[in-house]
Formats: sequence, structure tokens, C-alpha cells
Amino acid sequence: MPRERGKLLIAQSYNRPEEFKPLERYADIFWLDRMSEEEQARILPLVDCLFSHGWPKALDSKVPLMKSLRFLQTGNAGVNTVRFDLLDKKVVVCSNVGGYSDEVAEFTVGLMMAAGKSIVGFDRELRSGDYRHPTLDVVGRRVAFFRGKVVGIVGYGGIGKSTARMVRGFGMKVLAYGRHPVKERGVTGLRGPGGLTRLLRESDVVILAVPLTKATKGLIGAQQLAAMKKDAILVNVARGEVVQKEAVFAHLKANPGFSYATDVWWPGGDGRETFAPDLPFNELPNFIGTPHASGPTAIITGTMAKGVVENFTRYFQGRPLKNVVDRSEYQ
Amino acid sequence: MPRERGKLLIAQSYNRPEEFKPLERYADIFWLDRMSEEEQARILPLVDCLFSHGWPKALDSKVPLMKSLRFLQTGNAGVNTVRFDLLDKKVVVCSNVGGYSDEVAEFTVGLMMAAGKSIVGFDRELRSGDYRHPTLDVVGRRVAFFRGKVVGIVGYGGIGKSTARMVRGFGMKVLAYGRHPVKERGVTGLRGPGGLTRLLRESDVVILAVPLTKATKGLIGAQQLAAMKKDAILVNVARGEVVQKEAVFAHLKANPGFSYATDVWWPGGDGRETFAPDLPFNELPNFIGTPHASGPTAIITGTMAKGVVENFTRYFQGRPLKNVVDRSEYQ
Repeated sequence: MPRERGKLLIAQSYNRPEEFKPLERYADIFWLDRMSEEEQARILPLVDCLFSHGWPKALDSKVPLMKSLRFLQTGNAGVNTVRFDLLDKKVVVCSNVGGYSDEVAEFTVGLMMAAGKSIVGFDRELRSGDYRHPTLDVVGRRVAFFRGKVVGIVGYGGIGKSTARMVRGFGMKVLAYGRHPVKERGVTGLRGPGGLTRLLRESDVVILAVPLTKATKGLIGAQQLAAMKKDAILVNVARGEVVQKEAVFAHLKANPGFSYATDVWWPGGDGRETFAPDLPFNELPNFIGTPHASGPTAIITGTMAKGVVENFTRYFQGRPLKNVVDRSEYQ
Repeated sequence: MPRERGKLLIAQSYNRPEEFKPLERYADIFWLDRMSEEEQARILPLVDCLFSHGWPKALDSKVPLMKSLRFLQTGNAGVNTVRFDLLDKKVVVCSNVGGYSDEVAEFTVGLMMAAGKSIVGFDRELRSGDYRHPTLDVVGRRVAFFRGKVVGIVGYGGIGKSTARMVRGFGMKVLAYGRHPVKERGVTGLRGPGGLTRLLRESDVVILAVPLTKATKGLIGAQQLAAMKKDAILVNVARGEVVQKEAVFAHLKANPGFSYATDVWWPGGDGRETFAPDLPFNELPNFIGTPHASGPTAIITGTMAKGVVENFTRYFQGRPLKNVVDRSEYQ
């Protein structure tokens, strides 16, 4: 059953405000950063739905004022920064899973390629004046040929599926570890702890594309790294904390043939992701780091907003929501 | 008609000598670096076929002694280093086109990704202590999304076709410039000077995969670079000299959004490829260089030798040879 006209609050400015235009049919739209204190005091208690990208610090004090809040839709695919403890139980939280899948998947393939072909390392060495022609032995160790090799994808959602399509175009085999049965032809689905172990053992490239939840925090530690091939490539486009920082640092030091290529980083002292880790990853030759740059392309192109606007439309029309978050996985 | 038993000389050591074993049925096989002076004096005049990877300097003095030489098969796909001037007109030269196609194609995609996603640049900046979170504006300029974009492939042989298959898996459109009509679905074939201009104008990524011949030397100069999009990515896996050095250097300086990613370099004073160019490419942020590392993987895996052994078998069995070089394109 369609709802009454709503009040939608958007928590921060957005480069494409016009994307939200279709929602004016169903709701009055307010932008938090354009509202006066007086207006906030009047409107916030009436707001029934909220859009937020990440969790801006300002929400800590504003959310408790939103007594009518029923629905939080995030711009992010991962909701690990949401302060569930500040949200009343009656507030439904939906993530934007799939909003960045193709963008992040392309970047994932880029990280795999940059690591597997040693492109980052070769470029760095030439820039530092090391002009040696690589011997066959060096090429053998540093330039992987991916055709026929195995990619293991941990977390087989939107990013995982999109990545699988691309690497299958290279003639790679895909092992997919997730919660749901896998239906794609040519992809072997694996489940349960034994499934993860098998994936880690058999894969030449392991891609982490899980949400950060209680269950996936620290999923990859010393034991899991030890199960992997000595010259495997580990690509992380999930969240830094899926990998145990000290364990992967030690593993990279002990195994020069192993690579860790990541777009996502561990939190610093303030709890927010930092690219200045307290261990010197940026000095390791077998590490590649990028500053969480894989997803935002989807914000620029407007892909991010598509799922958001669709879910708000479902909300106002009283239809079932997509990507409802199970809070128990985070709290 | 099958030939008499031959004498095959292999010009340098090879990490997989066993690959040539099947040819013992047709010929006595000699390895130049294992022969004494005395043996060379006796055998070289009787050698009728020669395998060489590149053109080792030693061949300059040895080839004139090979009075019975009829056939030179190279290990390389490109024969631009062959000293045609030292080879009698009756010597048929065959290249190893296709011997590295899939390996080089994967590397090509890697260079495209490393440049288009700014992976090399981001990693370098983080290593230098620049820990800023990229703004949306920065991501918009530095992280390309390839789906729906256009790849122009200049030289549509083995490497070009293999690259086209991979990038079509990303949802990219392909323009292919070459001498032969294109038959692949979803690939637009272009020919002639007008075809090249159209490819340069319309492509987001231009890939150079032509052999280095009289016709392709200096093919990409100031005029061609000016025809390209301001933020295009130029990938070179052909030979350095296909691109005019001074022109591309000036273009990179003047157009910070343009990238040049190359695995192949210009010759130095000794006429051989050098990774220490006399212009400081390695200081440009929009340049990515790797040390001619895309192909040798095929030597290690044995793919390189397949076409070589097949062509020698054709030679000894008196069947038509593959990849016969038209000398007039080089001399």
C-alpha cells in the first residue's frame, strides 16, 4: 500500500542532486547541509527516511532527533560504518549492494593484473634507474600468465559475479565462496569452512569481496595465508579489516613471491580508514596499495544513485525493499 | 616433397631444449654455443636451417660462413632485428607471429588497466607519503570506467585479436586497424589512412600491436597524437620506434590527462632497445614503463616453441611455410 507523502533527508551534498528529482513525487526532500539550525529543529523530528553516504560525524547528534525515522538507505555497498547503536530498532537499514559492482570489479581486475604482471614494481624500478633487462628467470617469477589459472572469489555478490565474468574472458577458472548456491556456468560454488580452505589452497588469485560483518572481520589470518600458494596474489576490494594486518604483513615479509594488492585499508586511531598504516606496507615490494578509489566512479557516473532511488521508490510505494541489512551481522 | 636429412643450427641456448627433440627425426641439431671452433668450421657450411631468438651479435660473423643456409626461423614475432643485409636472397625468413599473442595480450590489458585506473600512480603517491583521500573530482579524472568505451587496436594480428577478445569481455567496443578484412563479430575493421585517423579520433584506448617495418616506423607522431582524445591511453606492445619519441614526450608534458603505457622502448646508441631513454620519460607521472616483459612468459611455458617446431616440421616435410617474411618491408 502506498505511503503518505514522506520527508526524505539527505545527509550530505552530492555531485548529482538531480538524480533524486524523481523522488519529489513521493516526498519533500531536505539536504542536511543546506538547513539552518531552526529548520533542523523543526524538520528532523518529522523525517521518516534518510539517505547517507558513509556515516558523517554530524549524524551522531542528529539521528537521535529523528523520532519518526523508519528507513535508512545507504549510498555505500558496505554498511560497516553505520552506527546501528544509535538507530532505533524500528528503523530498517538497506545497503546499496550492487551500486558499484562493475566499477569495483574492473578495478579488481586491474589490481590483479598490476600485481600478477609486476607492472607497478617494474615501473618503480625503472624510475629508480634500475635499467636491467629481466632474465627469463626473473620473468618466470614476476610475470604470471593467467589463462588456465584459478581465481577464488570470497564473497560472491555483485562485485564477485562481475569480476568472474571478466576473468572468465581471460580463460581463467573461477571458484566462488559464498552463502548462496552458485548458478553461473563455469563457476564452481563452494560453501562452509571446508569450502573456504579449498578455495585458498587451489587459487592462484584470491579476491576478497565480502561485506565487513562480525563473521568476516579478520577472516584472513596467518592460518588462511599459510593455506594459500606461496606465489598467490591476494586482492582486497572488501574492507581492510577482513584481513588481519599483522598476519599479512608478516606473510609478505616471509614470502617475497606472494602479493597483496588492496584498495581498502585498516582504520586508524579515529576508527576511520587510513592510508598511513602503522606498519610500513608501503615499503614492501610485494604490496600494491590504492586509496579506496575503485568505487567512487559509480558516484560520478550516477550508477550509485540508481539502486538508491529505486529502493526509495519501493519504500514510498509500499513495495518490498531490496538489500535489507540483518543488523545481527553487525551488532 | 620431403627433404633430405638436414642440419639445424640453434643460435643460442634455450631453457627448454627438449622442445626441439621432435625435430631430430628430420635433422641433426647443433647448438652454436656448445660447438668448438673446429666443429663450427666443419659444420657451419653444411647448415641448411637456423633458429635464432633475436639476432645475437655472433651471427654477424657466422652467417656468412653458412653457405648452404636456406631457412631462418626466428623465435621472435617481430623480425626487425634480423640482419637481412647479411642473408643471401635465397634464404627464406619466417617470423614467429602468434608465438606470444595471448601472453602479450594479457600484459596489454594489464597496462591499459594500470594506466586507466591510475594504479601505478596511486601506489607511487602512497609510497611517497601522500595519504590524501581522493576527492570525487580526482577520481573522475584518474579512474576510467572501461565498460562502453572504445579500444582502437592498430595492427590486428595475433596480439590484437587476443586483446580484442579480452576487452570485449569488459563490454568495450573495438575498432581494429589492419591490412586484412576483419571477420570477428562486434569488431569494426578499419583500413587505409582514413581508417587510422578515425581510430585515433574515436578511441579511448589506442593499442599499438603492429610489427616494426618501414611502413610503421614513426607511425605515431605529433599529428596522430593531436588527433587522439586529450585523456586517451596509448599502449605500446609493438616496438618503441612505432612511436616518435620526441613527439610523445612533448605530448605527455602538454597533456597531463593523456597516458602512455609501454613495454617496448627506443634503441640506444648501440642500436639495441634501452630502458634508459635520453628523454626523462621515467619522471613523468602520466608515463608507465615496463622492461619488455610481456612476451618472455611464452618462452618459459613453451608456447613460443610450438610455432617454431611446427614450421621446421613443415620445412623438412616440404610443406608450405607459415609466416614468411616479405623482406621488402624491412630493407
